[in-house]
Amino acid sequence: MSERARRAIEECKQIATMSEDPERITRRFLTPPVRLVHAHLRARMEALGMTARVDAAGNLRGLWTPKNKSAKRLLIGSHIDTVPDAGAYDGVLGVMLALEWVGMAQEIDAPYGIEVIAFSEEEGVRFGVPFIGSRAVAGRFDAELLTLKDGNGVSLEEALRSFGLDPADLGNAEVNDGAIGFIEVHIEQGPVLEAEGLSVAAVTGIVGQSRLTMEFVGQANHAGTTPMDLRHDALAGAAEWIAAVEGLAQQTKGLAATVGKIVATPNAGNVIAGTAKMTLDARHPHDASRLGAVEQLIEAANAIASRRGLAVEYSRQMDQPAVTMDERLTSFLTESISAGGFAPRQIFSGAGHDAMVMAARLPTAMLFLRSPGGVSHSPAETVREVDVEASLKVGLEFLKRLSAEVG
Amino acid sequence: MSERARRAIEECKQIATMSEDPERITRRFLTPPVRLVHAHLRARMEALGMTARVDAAGNLRGLWTPKNKSAKRLLIGSHIDTVPDAGAYDGVLGVMLALEWVGMAQEIDAPYGIEVIAFSEEEGVRFGVPFIGSRAVAGRFDAELLTLKDGNGVSLEEALRSFGLDPADLGNAEVNDGAIGFIEVHIEQGPVLEAEGLSVAAVTGIVGQSRLTMEFVGQANHAGTTPMDLRHDALAGAAEWIAAVEGLAQQTKGLAATVGKIVATPNAGNVIAGTAKMTLDARHPHDASRLGAVEQLIEAANAIASRRGLAVEYSRQMDQPAVTMDERLTSFLTESISAGGFAPRQIFSGAGHDAMVMAARLPTAMLFLRSPGGVSHSPAETVREVDVEASLKVGLEFLKRLSAEVG
Repeated sequence: MSERARRAIEECKQIATMSEDPERITRRFLTPPVRLVHAHLRARMEALGMTARVDAAGNLRGLWTPKNKSAKRLLIGSHIDTVPDAGAYDGVLGVMLALEWVGMAQEIDAPYGIEVIAFSEEEGVRFGVPFIGSRAVAGRFDAELLTLKDGNGVSLEEALRSFGLDPADLGNAEVNDGAIGFIEVHIEQGPVLEAEGLSVAAVTGIVGQSRLTMEFVGQANHAGTTPMDLRHDALAGAAEWIAAVEGLAQQTKGLAATVGKIVATPNAGNVIAGTAKMTLDARHPHDASRLGAVEQLIEAANAIASRRGLAVEYSRQMDQPAVTMDERLTSFLTESISAGGFAPRQIFSGAGHDAMVMAARLPTAMLFLRSPGGVSHSPAETVREVDVEASLKVGLEFLKRLSAEVG
Repeated sequence: MSERARRAIEECKQIATMSEDPERITRRFLTPPVRLVHAHLRARMEALGMTARVDAAGNLRGLWTPKNKSAKRLLIGSHIDTVPDAGAYDGVLGVMLALEWVGMAQEIDAPYGIEVIAFSEEEGVRFGVPFIGSRAVAGRFDAELLTLKDGNGVSLEEALRSFGLDPADLGNAEVNDGAIGFIEVHIEQGPVLEAEGLSVAAVTGIVGQSRLTMEFVGQANHAGTTPMDLRHDALAGAAEWIAAVEGLAQQTKGLAATVGKIVATPNAGNVIAGTAKMTLDARHPHDASRLGAVEQLIEAANAIASRRGLAVEYSRQMDQPAVTMDERLTSFLTESISAGGFAPRQIFSGAGHDAMVMAARLPTAMLFLRSPGGVSHSPAETVREVDVEASLKVGLEFLKRLSAEVG
C-alpha cells in the first residue's frame, strides 16, 4: 500500500481520539475537541506549505498556491464534525484525502492552487440544522440561523463567539473568485459498491427527498369482543400502507421509500389500535418521480382508509429537490476512474453531503469509496486500504486531467 | 318501562358515585369505596328479606331462602370492581339485575333459593390477576395468590386483613352443596348485538385465548443510501405479518386475531427499522381452531422472515382453553329469550367473565345485554332501558322454567 493511503487511514484514527466522550467518537460543531482537530490539521497543512485559517463559520481552510501563483484554485474538502457514537471515516477521510491530493498536485506541478476545507458542521446534530459550514462557504448562510439554540440553550451566535469567532465576519467564509470547482471524497455510507465489488464511483447527483407523517385513525376496541368485520383497526391499515410503500419502491427504479417509524395507540396487546402514525421518507434522483410517488402513496393511504372506515391525516414535512453534480467535473472524475484501471461506475447519493450545498455555488463533483457492510454512523464504520488507494489513483488522474484543462 | 328496569339502571348510576376518584369511576378490589358499595347492597338485600355476609375473599353474598326452606338455590351474580376510568354498568348491572331476579322469584313463589354474589375482584387491575373473587367461590383460589403485591407493595394477604377479612377463612367463600348452578347477566362489551339489532343473547361459551410476542430482527440502515433490494427491513416484515394475521382471521370463522401493539427500533424516520416487536392476541371458541391458527401464523412469520433475510423470535405468553357454558341451563336461557318474545340468539363471549371461572365448578350460563356502540371500559359505556327490560323478561321466563324443573 502507498504511504498516502496508509497515512490517510492512520490520521483518521488519530482524529477519532479527539472526542467529547472518551469512550466513543462524538465531535459536534464548535466543541472543545474541534480545537484539537484544527491544531492537528493546521500543522499538516503548514508542513505541506499551505497557509491555514479558520473562517468565521469555524471551517478550517488551507491554501496551497503553486509556483506560478495562479489565482485559479480547486476546492477539496469534507466535514470534521460527527454524529454521536460515530465512526472514524465519515467526513474526516475526505479531509485527509484532500491533503494527499495537495501532495499529489505538488508532485505533478499542477498549474492551479488547491484550497482544502475542513467543514465545521455537516451532521446537524448540535443545532438541528445541517450543513452550517458549507452554507457559509457557498454564501447560503441565512442570518436567522444564528438564533438556533443547542440542547443547552446556547445560540449559534454565542457558540461562534465562545469559539473566538465573530459572526459579523461571516462573509469571510464565502468562496471568492478564482474557484474552479469543489470536489468531495466521502465514504458511500451504503451497500451498493460493496454489493458490486467496486472500490469507487463518481456521484452524479444527490437524491431529492420528501418526508411526511401519515396517520390512520380508527377505533380502539376490545380485541376479544369485536368481530373482524366490525373493526376499524388503525394498525392493520398502517400495515397495508407500509406494504404499499415498499411495493411501489420495489417497482420504481431509483426510488427509495421507507417507513422507519410507527407509533400506535393505545399500543396494548388486547386492544385494537385506535391510531397508527408513521413516517415516510421517499428519495429519488428525479424530482418528478419522487413527487409522483408521494402522490401515489397518499392516494393509496386514502383508498386504504376509505375501504377500512378509517380517517387519514398526513403532513408534508420536507420536499427537498434533487441536486445534480457538475457534468464536466463528473465526467473528468469518471474518466479518471477508468484511467486508474477501475470500472467507471456512476451512482446517485441517497444521503445529503456538503457537496450538495456547494453545488448551488460552484461546479461540484463527488467521489464515493466503498463502505464495508454499508455501515456508517456507527463505531463499526470502516474503510478498506485497497479502496483508499484506489481513490488516490483516481485523484491523481483527476488532477492531471485538470492540469491539462487549466494549463 | 318497568320499575325493575328503571331501578336497576338508577342503582348502577348511584354505585358509580362510589369511586376512588371523584372525577371518574375507579373502584379496585378492597379499596375504601367497596365498603360503601357493600353497605348499599347489604341494605338492598336485607330489604328483600335476604341474609347478607362478606366472605373471606371480599365477595358480598346475599341469600334468599323460600318458604319451603329448600336447600337448593340458584347462584346469580357479577362483579363490583372496575377498571380505572370505567363505565357504570360492567359487572354492577349484573348484580343489580340479580337483586331484581330475587324479587321476581319471590313474586312467582319459586321453590328454590337464590344467592346473589357481588364478586369482589374480576378485572385484575389491583394485583394483576383477574377473577380473584370467583376463584375463591369456585374453590380455585391458589394460596400463592396471597403473595401478589399491588402497585404500592401491599400484598393480597395484607389487603384482605386491612379490609377486616381473614385469609385463613378462605374456605368459607367456596360454594357448598345445594347450588343448582350459576347465572351471570353482563353487558356484551362488543358490537355484535347492536349490529344485529338484538337486546339480549345467551352465551354458549367463552373463547380460548392465545397471546404471543413476535419479533422480527433485521438490520437498521440508512433510509437514503440502502437500495430496496439490499434491505432487511424489520418493519416491512412486520407489516406483512400483520396483514397475514388479519387475513387469516377474516377467512377463519370465529377467529379474532389482533396485533394491537408494535414497537420498532430505532423508530426514526430516516432509518430502516432494525427490529419490530409485536403482540398477537388470538381467540376462538374451539381450542383446536385457535391453536391451529397460531401455528399457521408462526409458520407465516418464519416464511416472511426467511424470504426477507430477517431473524424471527416469538414467545408464547398465554394459551387459555375455551370454556363451554352448561348446555341445559343455556338452553333454558335460550328458550326463555324466545318465550320473552325475542330472537333466540346464541353467541360466544370474546372476553373472560366470572362465569368462566364458575363453570369449572357449577353448571353455569350467561346472558348478554346489548352494549350501545360496543363501548365498554370507558365512561361512555351505557345500556338501553329497553334491553334491561328485555333481560328482566328473559329472567322471569328463566325462573319459571327452573321452578318447573326444581319443583
